[in-house]
Formats: sequence, structure tokens, C-alpha cells
Amino acid sequence: MDAIGEDSFILVYRDRRRRWLIRPRDTPKLHTHLGILDVSALVGKEYGATATTTLGDELVILRPTIEDMVMKLARRTQVIYPKDLGLIVVNLGVHAGSRVVETGTGSGATTALLAYLVQPTGMVYTYDINPEFQDVAKKNIERLGLSQFVTFKVADSRLGFEERQMDAGVLDVGDPWEVIGSMRASLKPSAPMAAITPTTNQAERLVAKMKEEGFVGLETVELLLRHLEARVGMTRPSNIMVGHTAYLTFGRRTSGMPQPL
Amino acid sequence: MDAIGEDSFILVYRDRRRRWLIRPRDTPKLHTHLGILDVSALVGKEYGATATTTLGDELVILRPTIEDMVMKLARRTQVIYPKDLGLIVVNLGVHAGSRVVETGTGSGATTALLAYLVQPTGMVYTYDINPEFQDVAKKNIERLGLSQFVTFKVADSRLGFEERQMDAGVLDVGDPWEVIGSMRASLKPSAPMAAITPTTNQAERLVAKMKEEGFVGLETVELLLRHLEARVGMTRPSNIMVGHTAYLTFGRRTSGMPQPL
Amino acid sequence: MDAIGEDSFILVYRDRRRRWLIRPRDTPKLHTHLGILDVSALVGKEYGATATTTLGDELVILRPTIEDMVMKLARRTQVIYPKDLGLIVVNLGVHAGSRVVETGTGSGATTALLAYLVQPTGMVYTYDINPEFQDVAKKNIERLGLSQFVTFKVADSRLGFEERQMDAGVLDVGDPWEVIGSMRASLKPSAPMAAITPTTNQAERLVAKMKEEGFVGLETVELLLRHLEARVGMTRPSNIMVGHTAYLTFGRRTSGMPQPL
Amino acid sequence: MDAIGEDSFILVYRDRRRRWLIRPRDTPKLHTHLGILDVSALVGKEYGATATTTLGDELVILRPTIEDMVMKLARRTQVIYPKDLGLIVVNLGVHAGSRVVETGTGSGATTALLAYLVQPTGMVYTYDINPEFQDVAKKNIERLGLSQFVTFKVADSRLGFEERQMDAGVLDVGDPWEVIGSMRASLKPSAPMAAITPTTNQAERLVAKMKEEGFVGLETVELLLRHLEARVGMTRPSNIMVGHTAYLTFGRRTSGMPQPL
Repeated sequence: MDAIGEDSFILVYRDRRRRWLIRPRDTPKLHTHLGILDVSALVGKEYGATATTTLGDELVILRPTIEDMVMKLARRTQVIYPKDLGLIVVNLGVHAGSRVVETGTGSGATTALLAYLVQPTGMVYTYDINPEFQDVAKKNIERLGLSQFVTFKVADSRLGFEERQMDAGVLDVGDPWEVIGSMRASLKPSAPMAAITPTTNQAERLVAKMKEEGFVGLETVELLLRHLEARVGMTRPSNIMVGHTAYLTFGRRTSGMPQPL
Repeated sequence: MDAIGEDSFILVYRDRRRRWLIRPRDTPKLHTHLGILDVSALVGKEYGATATTTLGDELVILRPTIEDMVMKLARRTQVIYPKDLGLIVVNLGVHAGSRVVETGTGSGATTALLAYLVQPTGMVYTYDINPEFQDVAKKNIERLGLSQFVTFKVADSRLGFEERQMDAGVLDVGDPWEVIGSMRASLKPSAPMAAITPTTNQAERLVAKMKEEGFVGLETVELLLRHLEARVGMTRPSNIMVGHTAYLTFGRRTSGMPQPL
Repeated sequence: MDAIGEDSFILVYRDRRRRWLIRPRDTPKLHTHLGILDVSALVGKEYGATATTTLGDELVILRPTIEDMVMKLARRTQVIYPKDLGLIVVNLGVHAGSRVVETGTGSGATTALLAYLVQPTGMVYTYDINPEFQDVAKKNIERLGLSQFVTFKVADSRLGFEERQMDAGVLDVGDPWEVIGSMRASLKPSAPMAAITPTTNQAERLVAKMKEEGFVGLETVELLLRHLEARVGMTRPSNIMVGHTAYLTFGRRTSGMPQPL
Repeated sequence: MDAIGEDSFILVYRDRRRRWLIRPRDTPKLHTHLGILDVSALVGKEYGATATTTLGDELVILRPTIEDMVMKLARRTQVIYPKDLGLIVVNLGVHAGSRVVETGTGSGATTALLAYLVQPTGMVYTYDINPEFQDVAKKNIERLGLSQFVTFKVADSRLGFEERQMDAGVLDVGDPWEVIGSMRASLKPSAPMAAITPTTNQAERLVAKMKEEGFVGLETVELLLRHLEARVGMTRPSNIMVGHTAYLTFGRRTSGMPQPL
């Protein structure tokens, strides 16, 4: 059984919009407009049960998934979505034992997911030029108990990664074309990489650079996620939809010298 | 270094449409309209290099990713896409050590990805009512070297899963509402599940049943993937696009008794 | 030259979100958070010019298009979008002289566009079971100067339309399948019709009924409109997007008796 | 009653993919793999009826809509879709009496729709630098009986349009930014225009130029059309979908001098 501890994360769930991610030690009482929830009383209980607020409202006590955690982190400085991360980790084949190089760290949301997947024997090497960002990310990763699977480096990844023979790479910087040379040197021959870019101009410039550096299997895609309101006799797509998050560019390093185009 | 062996999978890559997934022992010579490739000569070489056909055409020798393998398997009897699998595995938090229950096995494409992610300490319990399907899937999983992470069961999952305290569940059957009771009994309280259904009618009926059985956090979504042709000065989305694969429904089991609606 | 009169509609335009549709007689002074605009001073001026508020802010004085007018009307009780109306009027071939039957009138937004297109020799026959709705719609159509191209009828269209040999039909009611018999009797053989339905269930039931009544060329579609933020070096789709408005079902009446399916 | 004549267009309809647009004089016998249809025997009959081939197959005899005609023309040299044309004509408010300037003519598909809408008192002025294109377009417009509503001009629209005080403008050329000056001079102050461009780069450059020339209300959008297969109990979006046709950019001319950005 998974009993709730003082330092366990809890997702207090009412509906898609009303959800709180807390820990009993930090938030012994949760004040909501649905009443107050006695969080400390949940310690020792099992996840999945219902708890009642002082106003009599029932809330479900869930064990947060890594997706809940990542989305919580992401809300601060980055926009990264499970739909995009999902395609990236499947296309890159990130799993137990993978060694992955990433830049930039940002808030550590992507880093957290990668670390979660490479445990217990892999490692994520994450670069950011901004030491303050990495401090935030480091704390986030620590709180998730994933620190031993992440190596943080404050450095300019355009000047190179120190790691070699990486299984996969993730680029989430504004000028990813400047890091393709570093990525090429760091990846194992044949290894895949992914880059996240909001604009078409970035994707355009990035793909040209990847071709120059001999990457193959180049694909740039975007994912549109739409909710379906599935209700008996009244099913329809949601009115509300996110129109764009980012373009995802994938490719694989080759061992040959870069080819003239 | 990853040297190619007689039984290693090789992805011979020319472009997005011309790619072959083979093994030297099975296919010592690869006959293509670009000429013949001497595959047996690649044994002992490193992935990532280029090889030349008898007609002088250059092909890249890649190490297939799990995504390449899964898509290859999927082509036979199932339609399942990396975009959908990616969101599922991220939302379910499948990783090393996860214990996942799945029905139906189908060609084993989804099973293969789940097994890949739960290694080295987890297990995928996969049910199919059709023993012939499972035989195909079993061979596929064996060829991928993932057999020790999969337990195959020929059984009607509507009658129940034998496993308890599962970390996550995946439903890919035509009548998923009939399996929600079984899924509820098998999942750990608070654990997430995903169901894959092509029609709106299935999603509608499924969601109603999940509510009845006390699942929360219900969401039905679809993902539209669009390629961007990123070319300097001529960037545009691709004309060709898949309009629909499936609706994905997510939810989490609660420990309380099912609530009247 | 198109001089602005006391009763002319004016679109005061600042940007996509800050726009006001007014008439000098109704709104001699326009109070905005950008300052006050002396609207009565615009009388006699030409459209297309810039006017300055008391706070020195420049606003453009545009002549509203029919689309501006329709969208303004639509905001009250109906959700209808130019993207959907555009496909409908092109598929139905609505133009000068067309005789179109419509139910329900709603706020008259669709009616207004149809009337605008059928002038100077056509007619829109619009039915609504609710007399209060039609009163609102009537006033809207009058203000637009399109009354002579619209015949309003308060009646239950499920019991039949009085008109025969109509060139086209538009259905925007909750139970369009109940009106297909009426529509069939009212349309010219071979004439096209369109129905607007928010849910998949409605579309499903409607299409089945249209087949029963011998309609051919059946198609149900949806249109997703996405904005592109086209800015030099920073082009990207907008984050904000409407996820769903309605399904549009098209078909053509045949003259034969309904066929058994 | 609309009786079919020797020169009437007929849409012989079997299903979405099997449809033929013919005239009795040109095609007295229609040879299809469903048998031969005696088209000359349809003369004097009414549209909407069914006719039987020599193999006993039933085909529906429809009166083609302007959309059928436009799509038929479009198949030759241009890619233009009803979804895009619909939004354009609604946003531009094209209707009886409108005076519209267009470049380039292409195959005349867009021209045909515009002419159909501006009759009986409006005019479409259409420019193309290529006299051979215009010859094809001219014949197409003639066959549709719309010649008196179109003025063809073989000229380089970058050097200017001869018309002034136009109600609306449509640009469908590869370098629309080069024609914005001409368009500005030709449009009535406050009048709307639309431009059709396949790439993001074109939209980017176009919008920058429109800003420079004092256009306001700038919007670039794309429309994704998806079919819904509405079938009782098995409703789902179609697998097949067009991923991209074009970006549509809208704006309105102002009367003021161009503003520095």
C-alpha cells in the first residue's frame, strides 16, 4: 500500500480546473473556496480516497503522476505540454539507462520527465547558461527525488557539451541551430535528437543547419490537442483549445562527414 | 561502440518513405529499386554510417529506435501512432518498474513500447481473447528481446484481470466499457488508465461507464499531427495529413465505492 | 464617395479586440479607455480616415462589412462564424435572386448574410417557432436595411414550409432531422441544403434521416480556423484558438421517392 | 421547372468520388465503369432524377452548383478550395453590384465565383501577366455564362490596376507584397482585401508590406477542413484530410498616408 507521508505529494482533485498539488508538511490546511481541507489528517491514509472540506465538499486525494508534476513545474517559466513531451520521449526512445543531453534546463520540467524515465541507471546531462534558472530547476528536481539522475551544468552549450556517446538529445533554446555542432559531437552515431521551437523561422533555420551537419530522418511536426466532451447524446469537441505550443523537429546523427547540400 | 551483429536490427534509410527494417541473418542482400545493398557486409560495422548499393546509391545505416520497431509492428493489424502512445505513456507515467495491465494485445505494438519502458524491473500483463493474435505478438516481442517484461494471457478481460495493484492500465478493445469493472479491480487506488477508441460513440459510452465506476480526472482528447515542410524561404505545412487515428480517454481509479451519478 | 451619415454604421477600429460598431445618431460621443471620440463630427466625412480621441489616441473609421455586422448580431444568442457561413453560402450557391428557406431565425445573423447575398431580386424565408426571437431578428434586419429581402414567419417548421421550389435551404435548429421532410418538400429537385449542428449525435441522426429522404451528396464537415501571427522572423500560429463551433452537413434533394436504405 | 437543355451542365452523381460534370451536346453518351449513360436522353427532363446505365446502375442527375463548377475549373492549374473562397467572399462582402479587382486570374476558378456573386450589376476586373492563362480562364467564364461580369486584362499588376474605388480586392500571386501599392491605389478607402499564399514566408512579407501601406485589421488565418463520418453508432472523423491549402491574409485600406511603423 502507498500510504501518504508528511512529505508526500498529494493532488487534491475536484475537477479539471480545480486541482491543488501540495504536501502535508508544507500545507497542513488547504484553504479553498470549497472550504478548508485538513491535509495533515490525510497522513497515513491511502491515495485514491475522498476527503471532505469544512463546507462539506468532497475532494479526491490522488497520487500525482509525473505528468501532474511536470505540468506544475512548467507553469512557471516554460510552456511545454505532455503531448509534445510524449512524442519526444517515444521518438527518442528514452527509457531506463538512457543517457540524454539537454539544453536549456529552464524550470526543469522536461528534465524531470527525462530523469523519471532514465532511472535507475541512466543520466540526464542538462545545460543552461543561466545559473538562476538552474537553481530553480535543481530544487524542483530535488523535491521530486530525481537528483541522482540529473547532472546540472551551467555552461554555454553552443561551445560544446562535455559528454560523448549520448543516446539522445533534446534542444529547447531560442537559437538551436547554434547548438547542432555541439549536439552532433555529443551524440552516438545514429542517435536521435529533438528540438522544440515556437516559430516557423526557427524551424526553418534549424532544419537547414541539421542537413548541413549530416543529420538524416529530419521531420518537423506540430501536435494539435483537442478535447472531446463525451456526454451521452451530447458529444462535441470543446470550444476551448490551445492553438499552438511548439514545432518539434526530429533527426538522427550520422557518422559520416557533413555532406555538401 | 555499438557494432552491428548478425541478429541486429538495422534501419536502412533513404528518406521518409524509403526505409527498410531488416536483420543481416534474415536479409543478407537487400534488393531495392536503388540497387542491391550487401547487408551481410555491414556486420561488425558501426551504426550511423553510409553504405552504397550496386547502383551507387547511398543509404544510411541506422540503429532502429523503439518507435521504428513499434511502427513496423503496428502496420500489420493495428493503427496506433507514436503521437498517441507518447501521450499515453507520459500521462500514465510508465517507467522502469511499472506494472501495467493491457487489453487487447493485438499485434503487440503497444505492448512492445510498454515493455521497453518498464524494463528492467517492471512487467506488462497483456490480455487478448484471440490466441492467434497473441502468437504473433509473442514472436514480435521475442524478436525485440523484451519477452521477460511481458506476461501474455489468452483470456476475456471482461471477466476480470488476475493482477491486482497495477500502476497503470491500457484499454484497446472495441467495447472498453465492458472492461472498466475489471480495470477498476486491477488498478491500485489513484492509478491512471487510458483507453483508445476510434469512434465518438465508444468514447461517449466509455466515459459514462467510467463515471459510474468512480473514475475521476476523466478527459477524452484527440491529437492531430501536422508536418511542417521547413525549407528556407518556402516553409509551409504539408498537404498530406492523417485526419484521425483515435480518441484517447484518460481517468484515475478512486478507492471509494462507485457513486450514483 | 461614401460619406458618413447620421444613421450610417461606423466601425471604430483600434485593433482586433478593440473595435466598436456604432451610428452617429445613437452614439454622438464614444467613451473608451483610450479617450472620448467625437462621433458626430465624423458626419459628412469619408470612411477610411483616422480620428483622434480626447486623449490623443488615433482610431480608424471603417465602413463595416456585412461580416462585421453579422458577427455583431451573432454575439447575442447564436454562435455562428464567418468560416462556417462562408462555406455554406459557397456550397449552396446563394447569390442575387436566390430564394432560400431558413429555420430557425435566431438573432438573424445568418438571415442577414443570406439577405445581403440574395438582393436585389431574391428572398429569404425565415422560420422561427419563437416570436420573441423573430422580433429581435426583425429589428436587426431593419437596421441593416435588408427587410425587403426577408420574409419572417413564426411557425413550427417541423410541420412544413409554405414555400416551394426553393433554391437552397439552411437548418439551424436543435432537431434538424425533424425538419428534413419539410425541407424536401420545399426545395427544388437537385437543390442543396446545409444544416448546422454542434454535436456528433445530431449530425449522426440528421445524416440518417437525410438518406431516408433521398438526399444525396451527403457530407458532414467541420472547419478549424487558426490565426497565424505573421511577423518578420517570428512567425507562429496563435496560442488562442476556437476548438469547435459546429458540424456542417450538406446534401442535395433528389426528385425520386425516398429509397429504402 | 428547370429542364435540361443540350448546353446545360449536368453533374452525374454516384458518390463523392464518382461524379462527372458534362453537357449533353459535348457528351451524348457517358462511358463509365458502371456502364454507359445515355445523356442525350436527359434533355427535356428535370434535374434531381435518377437515370440508369446500360449495366443497370442508378446515377443521380444533379444541376451543378457554382461550387461544383469552381472545383472543376480549379483542378487544372490552381489549388483553391470552397472553404477558403467562402471565408474570402464573406469577409470581403462580395455581392450583387460589387466591383472587385483580382490578380492573377489563373484558371479563372476564383474569378468565376466572384462573377457569380457580383451579378447582375457588378464587375470583376481580373489581371494576369500570362495571356495563355487568361485565354483558358476566358473560355471557362464563357462556358459558365458569366462573361459580362468579368473584364480580363493581360498586364503586370505590380505596375498598377487601372480601376479606382474598387469595393474589394483579391490577390493570388506568388509575390503579393509587390502588388500592395497597386491594390491600395485601386481600393476605395476602408475597402477590404484578401490574399492567398501557400507559405509562411509569403504571409510574413505580405503583412509587413500591408502595414507599411497603412492597411489595418490585418489577420492571417488558415482553415483546416475535416470530414466527419456520421454513421449511427460508428461516428468518427475521416482518416483522410488535407493538411494545408493556403494562408489567407485580410486587411482594409485606410485613406491616411502610410504611417511609419
